[in-house]
Amino acid sequence: MKKYAIGIDFGTLSCRALLVSLVGEDAGAELACAVCDYPHGVMDKTLSASGESLPADYALQDPEDYLFALSQVVPEVIARAGVDKADVVSVGVDFTCSTLIPVYENGLPLCFDPRFAKEKHAYVKLWKHHAAQPYADRITELATQRGEPWIARMGGKVSSEFTLPKLWELLDCAPDVYEACDSVVEAGDFIVSHLVGTQVRSYVTAAYKAQYSEADGYPSEDFLAALDERLRYAARDKLSAPLLKAGSLAGRVTRAAAENFGLPEGAAVSVAMPDAHVAAPAMGVLRPGKTVGIFGTSNCYYFLSEDDVAVSGICGSALDGVAPSLYGHEAGLCCAGDHFAWFANNFTTAEVAEAAHAADISPLAYMISEAAQKRPGESGLIALDWWNGNRNILNDSDLSGVVLGMNLRTRPHDVLRALIEATAFATRVIFENFEKHGIHSDSLVAAGGMARKDPFMMQIYADVLRMRIDVVSSKNLPSLASAIYSSVAAGVYPDIYAASDALASKVCRTYEPNEENSRLYDRLYAEYLTLHDYFGRGENNVMKRLRALAAEVREQ
Amino acid sequence: MKKYAIGIDFGTLSCRALLVSLVGEDAGAELACAVCDYPHGVMDKTLSASGESLPADYALQDPEDYLFALSQVVPEVIARAGVDKADVVSVGVDFTCSTLIPVYENGLPLCFDPRFAKEKHAYVKLWKHHAAQPYADRITELATQRGEPWIARMGGKVSSEFTLPKLWELLDCAPDVYEACDSVVEAGDFIVSHLVGTQVRSYVTAAYKAQYSEADGYPSEDFLAALDERLRYAARDKLSAPLLKAGSLAGRVTRAAAENFGLPEGAAVSVAMPDAHVAAPAMGVLRPGKTVGIFGTSNCYYFLSEDDVAVSGICGSALDGVAPSLYGHEAGLCCAGDHFAWFANNFTTAEVAEAAHAADISPLAYMISEAAQKRPGESGLIALDWWNGNRNILNDSDLSGVVLGMNLRTRPHDVLRALIEATAFATRVIFENFEKHGIHSDSLVAAGGMARKDPFMMQIYADVLRMRIDVVSSKNLPSLASAIYSSVAAGVYPDIYAASDALASKVCRTYEPNEENSRLYDRLYAEYLTLHDYFGRGENNVMKRLRALAAEVREQ
Repeated sequence: MKKYAIGIDFGTLSCRALLVSLVGEDAGAELACAVCDYPHGVMDKTLSASGESLPADYALQDPEDYLFALSQVVPEVIARAGVDKADVVSVGVDFTCSTLIPVYENGLPLCFDPRFAKEKHAYVKLWKHHAAQPYADRITELATQRGEPWIARMGGKVSSEFTLPKLWELLDCAPDVYEACDSVVEAGDFIVSHLVGTQVRSYVTAAYKAQYSEADGYPSEDFLAALDERLRYAARDKLSAPLLKAGSLAGRVTRAAAENFGLPEGAAVSVAMPDAHVAAPAMGVLRPGKTVGIFGTSNCYYFLSEDDVAVSGICGSALDGVAPSLYGHEAGLCCAGDHFAWFANNFTTAEVAEAAHAADISPLAYMISEAAQKRPGESGLIALDWWNGNRNILNDSDLSGVVLGMNLRTRPHDVLRALIEATAFATRVIFENFEKHGIHSDSLVAAGGMARKDPFMMQIYADVLRMRIDVVSSKNLPSLASAIYSSVAAGVYPDIYAASDALASKVCRTYEPNEENSRLYDRLYAEYLTLHDYFGRGENNVMKRLRALAAEVREQ
Repeated sequence: MKKYAIGIDFGTLSCRALLVSLVGEDAGAELACAVCDYPHGVMDKTLSASGESLPADYALQDPEDYLFALSQVVPEVIARAGVDKADVVSVGVDFTCSTLIPVYENGLPLCFDPRFAKEKHAYVKLWKHHAAQPYADRITELATQRGEPWIARMGGKVSSEFTLPKLWELLDCAPDVYEACDSVVEAGDFIVSHLVGTQVRSYVTAAYKAQYSEADGYPSEDFLAALDERLRYAARDKLSAPLLKAGSLAGRVTRAAAENFGLPEGAAVSVAMPDAHVAAPAMGVLRPGKTVGIFGTSNCYYFLSEDDVAVSGICGSALDGVAPSLYGHEAGLCCAGDHFAWFANNFTTAEVAEAAHAADISPLAYMISEAAQKRPGESGLIALDWWNGNRNILNDSDLSGVVLGMNLRTRPHDVLRALIEATAFATRVIFENFEKHGIHSDSLVAAGGMARKDPFMMQIYADVLRMRIDVVSSKNLPSLASAIYSSVAAGVYPDIYAASDALASKVCRTYEPNEENSRLYDRLYAEYLTLHDYFGRGENNVMKRLRALAAEVREQ
C-alpha cells in the first residue's frame, strides 16, 4: 500500500510543495516538487494596491499570494509525482514567522475587504518587517525592568521581528484595523485554517515568536497594560485559538479546501511550523551535541539542551520547540544570502556578467570563484555583516554594515569574500556564546541552498568555526520536514523519532576544518570581535545616529 | 613684438604642454596645448622590461616615457598654436614629486643601461610608490627622538613619498644601483638637465620633499649615519648640484635639446617646480588668507603665512616655497579622484554603463548625477577616505578605507557619494588643523579637473568647509604656472607678482556654502572625526594588522 505526504514550505518569496513517499522501499523519497513565486513578492517600497510609498523598514505581503500559490503547487506536485491523489494521507505546512495577518472571524484577511484594501497595516507584516523596532525596544526595556519571566528565554531582548512589537505597532498605527479584526494570526496558522476550517495555532511559533510558555502563557495582561493600556487584553482577544505542539493533528482537509486546492478531502493536516524550526527531524538532529544550520537568505541555527538554560542574546528557547522533551534554542543571522544577493544585484559589472554568462554560472557564483583564488587575510578586508541589522547576539536591527580595509587594489570579489567571511564570524560569535552558557556543539548539520551549492562558503564556515559540517542532500528540507511531521499527525509513524529515522535526508558532503586557514581566521575573527563590540555594544553608536539622521532627512 | 612661453606639466599618467602668450593684448591667453600619455603608464603590478611581479605598494615609471612625451608635445603645441618657434622665449617644467631617478654623471638613467634594465630599483620611483614606508617610519622615529630641526617643518612625520625614505630604500634594497649611480634626481630636475645640459635642482622640491632649508641644508651627516652608516654621505654624494629658487634661470636650451625636442636654441629654462606647489601665481594667490586647492587624482592644499609656524601633521613648510617671502605650507589628500576612478573602474554595472552611454557622459558622471538626488545624510553612509592611506594630518600610508552604514537598500551611487563626502571631511580636518595653528583661510581658490567639472562635488566641499570656493578657469593650471615662472626667468616680467597679475587664470565659478546642508554635514563630520581618531590614532590598529597579515599571507 502506498502512502504519501505533501509538505508545503512558504518562504519569503515563494511557496514550495514536496510530495514524499512515507512507506515501503522508497520511504523518504522526494517524488516531485512544485514552486510558485508570490505575484507581489515582498512589498518594501510601495503598496501594490495603492501605489503608496512605504516607510523605511517595511516588508509587507499580500495574503492572496499565499492562497494563489497553494492552489498552484498542490495539483502540480501531485501531477508531477504521478501518484493517486487518494494516497496522499497528510499535509504539513511551514511558514516564515512572525509573519502576521489581521483576519476576520471567518479567517479572511482584512485587506481582502475593500474597506481596508488600501490600508498598509491590513496587509501581512513579513518576518523581516522591521518598522516595529521602537515598540520592540520599549517591550525589552519594560520587561527587563519588571523582570518578566519570559525575557530571559528570549535572550534578554525582544526582536522587532517578534509578534508583540508588530501587534502593538498595528494597534498604535492603525487602531481601526486592530479593532476591526477578530484576531491576528501567523501566516502558517492562516494556511492551516484554510485547509481544516478551524482556527488552531502553532505552539512552537507562539513559544519562539510570541513569548508563550506552557507554564506562564503569553506575557501577562498586567505587563501588556503597562506597555499600553489598550494592549491589556491583546493576547486574550487577538491571539486566541488553541495551541498545538509539533506533529499534532490540526484537523482534516475540508471539502471546500479539497476543491480549492486540489487535495484529497479528509487528509490529515499537522499544525503549522516555523519554516526553520521545522527542519531538525528531516536532518536527523533530535539529540544534543549536533547543531542544525539552515543556510539561505538568512541563516538559522538550532541548538539542543536537556536543561533549561537562559542563553543571552539569542532569539528564543522553548521546551519541545525543536525536538521532543528538549530545550530548543534558536539563533541566527537575519541577513546571509541576502548580503550576497544585494552585492550581485548592485555590483555586477558588465565584465563579470559576460564572464559568468560564458561560464554558464550566475554572476554571484563567478565572483565567488574569483574570491576563492585568494587565501584568508590576503585581501586585507574585514566586514561587519549587519546589512539587515544584527539578530544575534546583539539583537539590534538599527545596526548597519561595514567594510574596512579597502585600497586601490581592492576588487569587487574581495568585498564579496569579506561579506561571506563576516557571516561566518557572526556564526562563530553565536557558537561561542552557547559554549559560554554550557551548550556544546560537536558538529554542524547543514541544509539550505548555500550549504548544498557553495563548497567555498561551507569550507570558510568549517575553518572559522573549527568544526565539521555535514551537509544533507535534500533541496526541499523544510517541505520534507513538514511532510515528516504530517506523517506523525496522520499516525503513519508513532512518533517523530521513528518518522525521522525512516524519512530524514542523508548527508551528502562533509567539510573538515583546515588548520592553516583556521589559524589565519582566528586572527581575523579577533579583529571582527573588536569591531563587533565597538560598534555593536554602545561604545560608538554611529550606526544608530546615521540611521536616525537618514530618517530625519527623508521626512523633511 | 610677440613673446611666448611653453609650460610643461608632467603628471602621473601624461605630460601636457601649454603655449602661452606673455605680452600684448592677449597676454595670458592659452594658445594651444598638447598632451602625451606615458606609454608604460604607472608600473604597479609588473615591471614592463622583465615581466617581474612587483611587490605591494610599488609605483614605478620608465624615464624613457618622459623624454618620448616631451619630444611629442613640444613640436605639437608650437604647430597647433601656429606661432613662430623663434618667438618662444622661455620654457618651464613642473613634475610630480618626490619622483626619483638614479642617473649617471651624463644625466642618463641607470635603467637605460642594459646592466640595470631588468632591475626594478633602477627605474623611477613615482611619488605614490609607498614601499619605503618602513624607512619613513624609522626616519620619523629617530628624528623625533633626536629633535632634528627639520622634523617640525614636516608636520612631525616623514612621509614614504619623500626623498629620503626612497633613497634609503634604494641603498638598502639595491646597493649596486645606489653605488653605480652618480646621483638620484627629481624627475623635474632630470628634464631640465636634458634641456640645459647642466645639473641644477629645484629648491622648492628639495625644501618640501627632502627636508632641505637654507639655514640647515639637508638632514645632517650625523643624523643620516645614525639611520644607517652607509647613508652618512648620501646628501653630499647623491643629492648634489646647486639649488635654485622658483622662477630662477636654470640655463638655456642647448642645441642638442633644441634638435631632440623641437625647441628654439637659447630659450630661457626656469628651474623645475613641483607640479602642485607651482600653481599659486597662476591662481592669483600670493598673499595669506586665500588657500590654493588643486583637485585631481589627489588633492593638494597650499596655505600661506607670514610667520614660521610649525603645523603638525602636514606635508611640509618652506620659506619661498609657494610665494616669495612667505611660508608656504603644503597639505592634502593622497587619494581623491583616485577613489572615484577606482569606484567607477570596479563597480560600474552594465545598467549604469548603458544609461551613461545614452546620456553621453562617463559612468562616473552618471553615478554622481544619481548620488546628487539625495540630501546630505539621507543614505545613512559614512566613509573614511583612506584607500591610499592618509597623508594629512595622520600621515600614515598603512591606513585603509572604510564604508559604514550599508543596508540592503544601499545603492552603488550612495557609496560613491560617501566617498566624495569623506574627501571633503578629510579636507575640513586639514583646514581646522591650520586654524588651530593660527593660519586662517577666508576662501579657497580651486583648480583641477574635479573643481572645474563637478559642481556637485564642489558644492559639497563648500558646504562641508563652510567656505566660499572660487574656481579658476584654466584647464592647464600647472603648465600655465610653469610658463609664468619661466617668463620671470626670461626677464619678460621683473618678478612673480607682475607676472601673476598679467597672466593668472580668471575665476569662472563661485560656490557659497548652503547653511542647511552645512548643518547636516556638521553632524556627519562629527561622526567622521570619531572614526578618524579611533582608526587613525592608534585606538584600534586593525588597519595596520590587516595590512601586515595580507603581506604575510602573500609572502607565504
